[in-house]
Amino acid sequence: MEEPWSIGIDIGGTKLEAAYVDEMGHVRQRVRKPTNIKGGPSAIIEDVINCMWALREGAVSTPVGVGVGVAGQVEKGSGKVKFAPNLDWRDVPLQEELQHSVGLPVIVTNDVRAATWGEWLYGAGRGCDDILCMFVGTGIGGGVVSGGQMLSGCDNTAGEVGHITVDLNGPRCSCGNRGCLEALAGGWAISRLAREKVEADPEVGRLMLEMAGGQIEEINVQIVARAVRGGDPIARQLMDGVVDALVAGASTLVNAFNPCRLILGGGVITGMPDLIGRIDKGLRKLALSAACSSLMVIPAGLRTDAGVIGAAALASRTFMGNSPK
Amino acid sequence: MEEPWSIGIDIGGTKLEAAYVDEMGHVRQRVRKPTNIKGGPSAIIEDVINCMWALREGAVSTPVGVGVGVAGQVEKGSGKVKFAPNLDWRDVPLQEELQHSVGLPVIVTNDVRAATWGEWLYGAGRGCDDILCMFVGTGIGGGVVSGGQMLSGCDNTAGEVGHITVDLNGPRCSCGNRGCLEALAGGWAISRLAREKVEADPEVGRLMLEMAGGQIEEINVQIVARAVRGGDPIARQLMDGVVDALVAGASTLVNAFNPCRLILGGGVITGMPDLIGRIDKGLRKLALSAACSSLMVIPAGLRTDAGVIGAAALASRTFMGNSPK
Repeated sequence: MEEPWSIGIDIGGTKLEAAYVDEMGHVRQRVRKPTNIKGGPSAIIEDVINCMWALREGAVSTPVGVGVGVAGQVEKGSGKVKFAPNLDWRDVPLQEELQHSVGLPVIVTNDVRAATWGEWLYGAGRGCDDILCMFVGTGIGGGVVSGGQMLSGCDNTAGEVGHITVDLNGPRCSCGNRGCLEALAGGWAISRLAREKVEADPEVGRLMLEMAGGQIEEINVQIVARAVRGGDPIARQLMDGVVDALVAGASTLVNAFNPCRLILGGGVITGMPDLIGRIDKGLRKLALSAACSSLMVIPAGLRTDAGVIGAAALASRTFMGNSPK
Repeated sequence: MEEPWSIGIDIGGTKLEAAYVDEMGHVRQRVRKPTNIKGGPSAIIEDVINCMWALREGAVSTPVGVGVGVAGQVEKGSGKVKFAPNLDWRDVPLQEELQHSVGLPVIVTNDVRAATWGEWLYGAGRGCDDILCMFVGTGIGGGVVSGGQMLSGCDNTAGEVGHITVDLNGPRCSCGNRGCLEALAGGWAISRLAREKVEADPEVGRLMLEMAGGQIEEINVQIVARAVRGGDPIARQLMDGVVDALVAGASTLVNAFNPCRLILGGGVITGMPDLIGRIDKGLRKLALSAACSSLMVIPAGLRTDAGVIGAAALASRTFMGNSPK
């Protein structure tokens, strides 16, 4: 007899991925498709269903359930996607529709929350009751487990760690506020800052401009990272400012939540892994010493698989009688 | 037969208070003493014990237990006071010593956490599973209940909401960091700002200086509040900056924790109650709309009694078999 397994699905703005995840949190098989945003919710839902069938074809047993992480705000309980700007969705009853179509129990959550479930149960947070995951990608998101409980908050939006204010007079954020951590240290903000610097003085920004083939608008985080490695003083200076913001934000979070482990992931972190040590060092200077005394600052363990693994794990816990804490 | 009751104790930097608190969270009797800091831990512990005996004298039944809130860092479980700067204590095994001396079960927690217990169980947070209390006094502290659980964190320091960074280039805080919420909006920071303004231009700061009897060092939050009510433009401008910081800090907390109720208390808030409405209004502009959709911003309900009521309630829950969530 096959061991129990679940399907984990990650619906992002560019691709959707479905995975067969076993009891040990290992991905046994996966299917990917580009996200068909233009087709609207029904096209994406159809693609999700097809991915699920593809995974079930090769399996002997029926999965325990399906967990879905979606880049948007999700209503607790109903699993309705209230708002997903990257997908252009509003009020899509995703959980209900999938459940109806596939005849399996389905649970829908936010994509970053799903990744936090993954890191908690099978990644860098394993066995720990107090973790804070911060994923620094294009945007900054995260999730918090405190006292062995995944925090969800009043409207299921707890853990928006990218939108903590670290500079109340700082630059405008995509959310409308000023000086959010994301507006100073998210991938989009780093790209914007680099372009501004090059635009202000192309001579000084020569290296980054060359790397971008002479096109200012092609300058992005990857180029900044390469320029830093190449010793470019402008890129280094820019990243010093980003580190200051990340340290300020991490101090806020450590003081407010007092996690045992601060787990850092996302494209910006994996692209510049020395950020972890710099954040750790800065934190120990600025955060309250009592809040840091047991703290470990460590990289995420599951990389890009955290989302599907976490979504599947959430489904297993929910539908195997071990309801998620 | 008398109904069950507990003793709640609040050990602060200037006074200690012990109260007979009934099952409904009402203070039936109280005893106060100035905190004898010079006498060291043993003098204060003796005073606490005497207060407890005074409360027990008039009672028919034995209290269920004793809850103590102390202004300092407390070790979870052992109830040892690791560090209490205002009392000049380090590593005082308060819970053990009291328990040994009075023969009753004792639980020790941080004073702000105790006040949060009070607000949650009997005050403005009653019946709600997701609350965030922020007490703006000389310093700024708080506590968080999320998913029906009081957050404590890895080292029992969760909820240090005064030390969230709102301006990473801001003024130095007492904790050593820069631009903490407390350094921009705590009572000590407001007093300092007012003194700086008056010092820079005594003519402009005339009203506040007069109110302080001509002594700059006598200018404090109460005087700033009176000057605001008196229409002083300098005091008003100063408080506008304080409100900006409080709004930025509250936005951070609402986005990170997503509480249903943001409960505001402490001397600065009770002295200038219009701050609550101003923070509420500012928050709705700056915090994520999804995180505010169910949010209520309300005043604390128990005022200065929150500490003793909360400490007693914690003892009742812990020692009557209903261990605190």
